[in-house]
Amino acid sequence: MKKILLASTSTLFGESYLAYLLPHLNKFFTGIDKLTFIPYARPGGTSHDAYTKTVAQAFAQIGIKVVGLHTYTDPQEGIKKAEAIFVGGGNTFLLVNQLYKLDLMQSLKYQVEKGTPYLGTSAGSNIAGVSIKTTNDMPIIYPPSFDSLGVVPFNLNPHYLDPDPTSHHNGETRETRIFEFHCFNSTPVIGLREGSFITVQEDRIVLQGPHTARVFKAGETPFEMETGSIW
Amino acid sequence: MKKILLASTSTLFGESYLAYLLPHLNKFFTGIDKLTFIPYARPGGTSHDAYTKTVAQAFAQIGIKVVGLHTYTDPQEGIKKAEAIFVGGGNTFLLVNQLYKLDLMQSLKYQVEKGTPYLGTSAGSNIAGVSIKTTNDMPIIYPPSFDSLGVVPFNLNPHYLDPDPTSHHNGETRETRIFEFHCFNSTPVIGLREGSFITVQEDRIVLQGPHTARVFKAGETPFEMETGSIW
Repeated sequence: MKKILLASTSTLFGESYLAYLLPHLNKFFTGIDKLTFIPYARPGGTSHDAYTKTVAQAFAQIGIKVVGLHTYTDPQEGIKKAEAIFVGGGNTFLLVNQLYKLDLMQSLKYQVEKGTPYLGTSAGSNIAGVSIKTTNDMPIIYPPSFDSLGVVPFNLNPHYLDPDPTSHHNGETRETRIFEFHCFNSTPVIGLREGSFITVQEDRIVLQGPHTARVFKAGETPFEMETGSIW
Repeated sequence: MKKILLASTSTLFGESYLAYLLPHLNKFFTGIDKLTFIPYARPGGTSHDAYTKTVAQAFAQIGIKVVGLHTYTDPQEGIKKAEAIFVGGGNTFLLVNQLYKLDLMQSLKYQVEKGTPYLGTSAGSNIAGVSIKTTNDMPIIYPPSFDSLGVVPFNLNPHYLDPDPTSHHNGETRETRIFEFHCFNSTPVIGLREGSFITVQEDRIVLQGPHTARVFKAGETPFEMETGSIW
């Protein structure tokens, strides 16, 4: 049975890493002793070791050990044996490139579909979608494909921001960018605001957290999805 | 002799399309009667025809006719015969994908290096750089490569925005994103603020417009480049 938690962000303003999520993760990871962490998105260029250390410190608060996938000689084996998996945020292109380079995309998808609990934040949530074509990240590296895990039937736009009516800046709004995506793609997109997250228990997909989410479907007017509602 | 003008944006807040640039373009395009416009970036999903019409209306004010490259049966021929070229903004991935699909990237580079005057705004400026790896756009389509024209020896980040110290949003700042780019790439990046533009006359590259630009070099502290200064 699929068991997935996809958060818009790891961290809320002024809080420590994962702080707002820990009470939920404590429940979500019931029975899990050790979490396999995939640090490939390297936020701010941080090293795999340093990133894994940060994650380990957070999970120590709920009694879960963390091992970085980069410490395995055979990362395929690491994925296969994982009790649970966490893919952290950072740069989505870098993350996806590394997953393809190590031929891990398919095995990761297989394990998640088989029921290995999966936690994603930001870029780690992005790759749970059908493709990374709605990431906000800069394309700093050219990956072999934009296709991602597709363990949920939509794409995500993490850190979703509403258009700012006071802005004098002429760059495209998030809404315009997602509209452009739908000129060439039919996958629905969930704009997930910081603090919100999506849980999946097999086919039951629920929006959780303090905010509504903005849902974009090709050819339709975007609408707000209430927290607690089912996809 | 290379003759290039690369603008951060086509339009300033509250102004009409290209308004702030027209006095400069009037000089830049001295002697040019007809401009070949490349509408492939399709901002907001607009059609090639509609986009070309907007551009034609703006250039009519300075007595220059505009023809859309999409109207040519053989776009290679269109590039080759162009008196001058304008690549407009929109989605950089879409633009680059179309240029590769029609096998135009090399011929465009060839003509610009041979001296056909080239105007770029936003995505059109982005592709003048070495790669599109510092675009702000959403990767709505998977192009065959991130490599672009490379008619200037750096990358651009158009619509450059400074970090907002009042923001409570946890998405990466532009500066962080460019720092991440430099973890894996050595090309310098110019963060070009809206209203600023870069002119190239053969090897003389000059920053113009009301703002300084932020320059990012791998392994160095970013710095401000004064308007009027030479790259």
